[in-house]
Amino acid sequence: MKTIIIDTLGGDNGSKPIVAAIKSFLIDNPEDKVIAVGNENELQELKGVCEIVHAPYNIPMEASPLDVMRHKDSSLYVANLLMKEGRGDAVISAGSTGGILTASTLLLKNAPNVKRAAYVAPFPTKIKGKKVVVLDVGANNENSPEELVQFAVMGSLYAQIVLKVEKPKIYLLSNGTEEGKGSPVTKEAYKLLKNNPNFCGNMEARNALSGEADVIVSDGFTGNVFLKGCEGIAKMMSGMIKSAFKKNLWTKLGYLHVRKGIKEMSETMDYKSTGGAMLLGVNGVVVKAHGNSDEYAFRCALNVAKSLADSDISNKISEGLK
Amino acid sequence: MKTIIIDTLGGDNGSKPIVAAIKSFLIDNPEDKVIAVGNENELQELKGVCEIVHAPYNIPMEASPLDVMRHKDSSLYVANLLMKEGRGDAVISAGSTGGILTASTLLLKNAPNVKRAAYVAPFPTKIKGKKVVVLDVGANNENSPEELVQFAVMGSLYAQIVLKVEKPKIYLLSNGTEEGKGSPVTKEAYKLLKNNPNFCGNMEARNALSGEADVIVSDGFTGNVFLKGCEGIAKMMSGMIKSAFKKNLWTKLGYLHVRKGIKEMSETMDYKSTGGAMLLGVNGVVVKAHGNSDEYAFRCALNVAKSLADSDISNKISEGLK
Repeated sequence: MKTIIIDTLGGDNGSKPIVAAIKSFLIDNPEDKVIAVGNENELQELKGVCEIVHAPYNIPMEASPLDVMRHKDSSLYVANLLMKEGRGDAVISAGSTGGILTASTLLLKNAPNVKRAAYVAPFPTKIKGKKVVVLDVGANNENSPEELVQFAVMGSLYAQIVLKVEKPKIYLLSNGTEEGKGSPVTKEAYKLLKNNPNFCGNMEARNALSGEADVIVSDGFTGNVFLKGCEGIAKMMSGMIKSAFKKNLWTKLGYLHVRKGIKEMSETMDYKSTGGAMLLGVNGVVVKAHGNSDEYAFRCALNVAKSLADSDISNKISEGLK
Repeated sequence: MKTIIIDTLGGDNGSKPIVAAIKSFLIDNPEDKVIAVGNENELQELKGVCEIVHAPYNIPMEASPLDVMRHKDSSLYVANLLMKEGRGDAVISAGSTGGILTASTLLLKNAPNVKRAAYVAPFPTKIKGKKVVVLDVGANNENSPEELVQFAVMGSLYAQIVLKVEKPKIYLLSNGTEEGKGSPVTKEAYKLLKNNPNFCGNMEARNALSGEADVIVSDGFTGNVFLKGCEGIAKMMSGMIKSAFKKNLWTKLGYLHVRKGIKEMSETMDYKSTGGAMLLGVNGVVVKAHGNSDEYAFRCALNVAKSLADSDISNKISEGLK
């Protein structure tokens, strides 16, 4: 039995899709519990379904760390506080990356032996159904080589638990494949990572999604540029494909012929099934759902939060970093 | 009258497409000259068309800087040496990024006032026909804030000369748009760039290709990850689209309906028309053609090399950085 705390504010689509996702999650997982934190007026449907905690203030996207810690009545703050008080095993929010980072690292604190928490995000690959996780994609502005070595351990545990890869192949994101290529930090990290039997060397960004790697380690600044660069170009190309099909009746007819293939591509590129990014390295499970999440995306976030909580990942990370 | 020196080895497709490109370039630009450097046996067709210099050794892709400087009979070394001796105004090679960087920076040296040379690459944007240049995309493994400030000046001159943008809008590649976001280096660069009247702030990788920016400044490590990440995902999506259309007769029929739109997309994403990446900041014009260049791509590289040589960009950069 696990309890998942969910911040029902912060998403772009209001609390409706979250309410629906909670209901469906609890039908499929009757032994688990959910605590819904937010504006109780919007959560009437959840009465009798799960515990509701009233915390109606929604932290705005651009809030500074100070703003986050000042608004003790915000859904994000209260959700993390409940987690800190031991009321739950995982916390989910669709709020801003920065806001969640602040609330979770300051309230929950890093797990024992963890130098820095990291956002880990699963990416699609060329190999159907296979995913690769990249970390850190944005919790840090810079990282030391020692922190990258810890990220390798944290990412591997994530890949084992969520992606079910027994021996995850670890690579270091760099500007060349040979040893000796890279920034001063990655060069140093390479030397230290050689002790990890699953470390396979440097990976260029162009091959990151080839399906060869299970875990790709990066400092938070570069990882963020990689994540958002991929997002941007994927969106741009999807837009161009859509407008190619929308031109006239003939092109619309053309779409009917290939919609299965195009749908497969959209599914491959879809972030929703991944549940979002996870903040690894704090005490407890923290899932950052995509801001634009719909019911399906929140449902996936609940599933991922549950499997991470079931697996006791925080303790495993502390253990692994000893 | 300008003389362009071209390394005819180093490309993936042999010297054939280069020979064809040189011939067509000289027909359109009879007042200019070309020096073709490589294996003279492969350059017979150019006899009487342009000067041929025999230098038959092809520097392998994975050559170390030491290897590059040792092989004084290589086409790459000789092409740069001719440039150093004042025999030409621009040098083009489809050899490795690292090899060209070594030969050009060590033989030609940085232009006066330039701290570090940078590779600049033009990217497509959402706005039809509009390009954005990103630098550095791989000449450096790390950069100081002062170097990023110089890249802004160099990139602007490039945008003015090649993209014909009068007042190029300059952005700094970062992990957030607000001032105060970024790595320690970008934060410091932001403060210094405020003095540049065309500086518009931070740009997240996700919006880099929105068409808002003309110049995006990055350290060489992050810029390389951005470039190759974009390349990788664009290739992956193109592959998925192709296989969606190739499934059966019906999907092939579907393709006929949308081929115009898909062709437009391919043209937008096509790197060939850009001529490749340019190494800015050395004495003289250095163009790195894409390894996989065909005749059209080499022809574009010759055009870009000519317009950069005509514009006297090296001296303008030295002047701009005074």
